[in-house]
Amino acid sequence: MECMAKAQVNAVCSIARSLEVLGERWTFLILREAFSGVTRFADFRAALGIAPDVLSDRLSTLVESGILTKQPYREQGARSRFSYHLTPAGHELLVVLGALQQWGDDHLPNPGGPTIVRRSRRTGRSLRVDFVDDNGRKVRYKDVEFARTAAYPDTA
Amino acid sequence: MECMAKAQVNAVCSIARSLEVLGERWTFLILREAFSGVTRFADFRAALGIAPDVLSDRLSTLVESGILTKQPYREQGARSRFSYHLTPAGHELLVVLGALQQWGDDHLPNPGGPTIVRRSRRTGRSLRVDFVDDNGRKVRYKDVEFARTAAYPDTA
Repeated sequence: MECMAKAQVNAVCSIARSLEVLGERWTFLILREAFSGVTRFADFRAALGIAPDVLSDRLSTLVESGILTKQPYREQGARSRFSYHLTPAGHELLVVLGALQQWGDDHLPNPGGPTIVRRSRRTGRSLRVDFVDDNGRKVRYKDVEFARTAAYPDTA
Repeated sequence: MECMAKAQVNAVCSIARSLEVLGERWTFLILREAFSGVTRFADFRAALGIAPDVLSDRLSTLVESGILTKQPYREQGARSRFSYHLTPAGHELLVVLGALQQWGDDHLPNPGGPTIVRRSRRTGRSLRVDFVDDNGRKVRYKDVEFARTAAYPDTA
């Protein structure tokens, strides 16, 4: 019974559900490349130095999870292949990658300084990932509360 | 040479550096429990149903990486043990967990609704994780740009 309760907590926890899809180092690095405009198997492989079977497996998971979509293409004289493109749900992972990037730059800094900066296309202002309220105003971490709802499983 | 260039890109990429520490499902779930107030080995184990050697290994990595700090404690009649507490760098991972949670709630929703909500302690307003500019104003995803700096390695 105790194990069922734990499985139940993990099934309803959105962090655990996200990690069922994303909880693996390569997956985030594949997404980093996808956000840089990489679409082809060979280009993901060249950018990451990842084993083909691992890359194939991770791309399939990302397609099945609705984060990437695959489209056939054919270069002259070659067989038909697939390219991989971010879906709208995939595009919304930008804030997760931004949060990881920001934490790495803050706490595991590169001696030469950040290699990528986040900025506004419109204003050029530098950007951070933060908690914002429904008025679009930043809220400090110390004022952020994670509160259980009525849907939270009763494991007592 | 090609492999060196890739290793170089990964070493200077703050997403890759963050994932060296965090790039594993259990690590995020341990952090979820730490944010819920769990500090003791037995309590992490009971909450997650994780094998003791895996838990021990992940806690050590989190301590070595400055995300958790360990403190000795002793209960009456028992041997001295350690409890694990978030450091300031650990607390700043709240935004990474918040981003994962939000994405899971948006794209892999629990049929019964979210089990945890993010809200402001001061105003009670619901919170999202988003990009904000240096004026503390939310910026839309389509206006967010990730731009290479002069520190970006030349792999040409």
